[in-house]
Amino acid sequence: MSVRLSSTGLAVSGEGSLAQAAGFLDAVLRGLGQVMLQNNSYAGLLFLIGIFCHSTLFGLAALVGTTVSTAAAKLLAVEPDQVRDGLFGFNGALVAIALLYFLHPEGLTWAYVVLAAAGSTVVMAAMLRLTQVWKVPALTAPFVFTALVFLLACARFGRLHSTDVLPTAGLPASTAVEGVVSLSTVVEGLFNGLAQVFFQSGVVTGVLFALGLLVSSRRAGLAALLGSLTGLLVAWGMGAAEPAIRSGAFGFNSVLTAIALGAVFFALSWTSAAYALLATITTAVVFAAVSAALQPLGMPALTLPFVLVVWVFLLASPLFRNLRAAS
Amino acid sequence: MSVRLSSTGLAVSGEGSLAQAAGFLDAVLRGLGQVMLQNNSYAGLLFLIGIFCHSTLFGLAALVGTTVSTAAAKLLAVEPDQVRDGLFGFNGALVAIALLYFLHPEGLTWAYVVLAAAGSTVVMAAMLRLTQVWKVPALTAPFVFTALVFLLACARFGRLHSTDVLPTAGLPASTAVEGVVSLSTVVEGLFNGLAQVFFQSGVVTGVLFALGLLVSSRRAGLAALLGSLTGLLVAWGMGAAEPAIRSGAFGFNSVLTAIALGAVFFALSWTSAAYALLATITTAVVFAAVSAALQPLGMPALTLPFVLVVWVFLLASPLFRNLRAAS
Amino acid sequence: MSVRLSSTGLAVSGEGSLAQAAGFLDAVLRGLGQVMLQNNSYAGLLFLIGIFCHSTLFGLAALVGTTVSTAAAKLLAVEPDQVRDGLFGFNGALVAIALLYFLHPEGLTWAYVVLAAAGSTVVMAAMLRLTQVWKVPALTAPFVFTALVFLLACARFGRLHSTDVLPTAGLPASTAVEGVVSLSTVVEGLFNGLAQVFFQSGVVTGVLFALGLLVSSRRAGLAALLGSLTGLLVAWGMGAAEPAIRSGAFGFNSVLTAIALGAVFFALSWTSAAYALLATITTAVVFAAVSAALQPLGMPALTLPFVLVVWVFLLASPLFRNLRAAS
Repeated sequence: MSVRLSSTGLAVSGEGSLAQAAGFLDAVLRGLGQVMLQNNSYAGLLFLIGIFCHSTLFGLAALVGTTVSTAAAKLLAVEPDQVRDGLFGFNGALVAIALLYFLHPEGLTWAYVVLAAAGSTVVMAAMLRLTQVWKVPALTAPFVFTALVFLLACARFGRLHSTDVLPTAGLPASTAVEGVVSLSTVVEGLFNGLAQVFFQSGVVTGVLFALGLLVSSRRAGLAALLGSLTGLLVAWGMGAAEPAIRSGAFGFNSVLTAIALGAVFFALSWTSAAYALLATITTAVVFAAVSAALQPLGMPALTLPFVLVVWVFLLASPLFRNLRAAS
Repeated sequence: MSVRLSSTGLAVSGEGSLAQAAGFLDAVLRGLGQVMLQNNSYAGLLFLIGIFCHSTLFGLAALVGTTVSTAAAKLLAVEPDQVRDGLFGFNGALVAIALLYFLHPEGLTWAYVVLAAAGSTVVMAAMLRLTQVWKVPALTAPFVFTALVFLLACARFGRLHSTDVLPTAGLPASTAVEGVVSLSTVVEGLFNGLAQVFFQSGVVTGVLFALGLLVSSRRAGLAALLGSLTGLLVAWGMGAAEPAIRSGAFGFNSVLTAIALGAVFFALSWTSAAYALLATITTAVVFAAVSAALQPLGMPALTLPFVLVVWVFLLASPLFRNLRAAS
Repeated sequence: MSVRLSSTGLAVSGEGSLAQAAGFLDAVLRGLGQVMLQNNSYAGLLFLIGIFCHSTLFGLAALVGTTVSTAAAKLLAVEPDQVRDGLFGFNGALVAIALLYFLHPEGLTWAYVVLAAAGSTVVMAAMLRLTQVWKVPALTAPFVFTALVFLLACARFGRLHSTDVLPTAGLPASTAVEGVVSLSTVVEGLFNGLAQVFFQSGVVTGVLFALGLLVSSRRAGLAALLGSLTGLLVAWGMGAAEPAIRSGAFGFNSVLTAIALGAVFFALSWTSAAYALLATITTAVVFAAVSAALQPLGMPALTLPFVLVVWVFLLASPLFRNLRAAS
């Protein structure tokens, strides 16, 4: 067996159980990196450190979720390349953090997390088959669907208790401008936007996530920061509530859209940059819409706005002959 | 003309009007059997007897619905094999029972039932075309969509009156454990879970449905009973309300998932059994989620949880190389 | 350069900037015609006159929306034939009118309209790719999704103010028969049904829309009038509220279904006429259902019922061997 460091993570050869373990660890870290579309173990490691900086509970949740969903993929004999690239890890990571963010961390909750993380592997495989017809990626759709189902179900299950972070169910109504946006709103909102991708907050965590991205791809890191800023500015311009802007709520979906369309799927050009900007602006509007649409159910928008916008912009792109896919 | 009994129902040859009538009757019975995925007239007949045991109204509704949707398929010149196998009957049966379960049986309601049953034939054809891209079956999705549309529409139609069985519209909220599960809860819940597949209740009806399944396929009958039990146990473990568990509400979708994944679509193996068990457990969670998601509309979950879970698990299966499709 | 009048609009040849402008104008008018599935500039012009007859604001909105979405398609280098046929205009037209119908026409609203109209071009391209798998048209789905997203988002944006035309969010409940249908209900409802396709009302506007259709296709004009009448009669028979019937609310989706299935996609025959009638009747039921389903969000049904019904009936049609597609 030999293990060496490649430019994106561990390069493992050989068949022994130690090689297996090293390969599995690498797949778990890549799974964490894939949350921001980076097939890169170093990025995943920095994301994990960023999460632990903010909360040990969520750090553990991320590890458990990624491990369970990756292990489920191995047990079900998914094609090894896909497992190694972390494609069956990132949804499990997000499902686990989301459930522990919105539910009290009791024993039954952890069992529920394991079931949901394993389920996310099946949903991922199903989404891969669904979306391959149009040659678009599944993105974090498996996380969104799995988490919404497992959170909604708690309304019928008396032994699972939600934290008060879950939005209260209510009917959407028009709103007035609330609070004043200051420089501190912008700075905190900028980095919280990155941190919120993993349900975290705080400038330190946001900076660590940005570092992880920059290590993997400078273009992705830059796109993420510009995406967070764009989402924040659109929300400000439209008159969104200041606390929501500061919390990064309008940023994290725009971060992901900016990475996907600005740094992953298209070759760089003026047209593709403008296209990514249009998508990033639209993502902030779609976030507001999804958040309102889920209000009667008391459910959070999660990364559904990112998924919807990037699907639409990728589906549309072959008809736009000025855009060129990344090689 | 000749009519003889084959192992799955009538085998009709010849062209006379009596042969036509016998063939149509056989298609209607197979349509009733297909509600539990059995292309088997004897199963359909036992299901029909089970329904009549519980309620003459629902027995008539089942006959009318299956007849109308099957006749619509013949009028529109659907490929005869599909009609004969009952593929254009089961959604009509369920639509008719559902509308008469939730609406007062007045004259206009019966006209509405005929329109909906005929409509379910068009929805079935559309779903067959949609799902053939991925080579997955339409399941009872046409029933679910048609019934939800025709029930929702009643909110705007003053001449159709709902019974008090329809859930009251409300916002989902967290719940506490309610009632104590006893042995009688488990026994009644087990058979009500089967009976609820046709919106019925009672141990006698449940036993007749189980008999119908066993006649058609012992594996399907066993899967159905285990599915009902699994759904019930998951609900109990998670702290669902005792009356809901006793009524079979957490069972009927798990029954259908267990039949589909445990006895129809996969070759039997340890992996496929574990896969079916995971799906059956998940179905109980998805039932809770769908039930909560439809609460603001005051709509029942119907068999949507079964449809969603089986679609996901079938879509995913080609990527799991340890699973083998049934021959 | 030469510009001459063909049977469906301008026929432009040559490359100069005047030819470009004439071609663009023609594409805008065809875009307005495509709202009722007519690739015909004269129809589009009559529709535009009909809108201006009712309201200058909505006339301007229609022009701005069609222009922005058509220009976006040109900038993104969509295949010229599709742009010229108005396929990238009709959704922009409807999005713009809808946003100005439901939001106060302030400066920010117009910026929002431009963003939404440009976005509708991307959604249209995405829908074309999605639906081409089944060879069904995108219809007005891009308008529906874009408008719902941009309207829902206002619940989070304090600087956009809705007019009181937007339905109040509430839980759907059963209703009683309200008001008495008279001859004036039927006459006004008939023409309002046509006018409502563009969110307008009034007999004059309805008549101008009918004229536009008749100029383009007598069969389409007749189908539209019969469609409006059918929707109205179904609503009356089911006990819908008289003011809703008079306003054309139950008509405009049936108008579009009748045009699509009665005059565009099928060769005329007794079977296809009966099929179109079944679809038109069903559209009134689906309108009631969609309207109730969107009530908790306080959102209007728009033309979603038309889109859903026509998709289902077109998807299903290849399995019905008695139906023949239009040549």
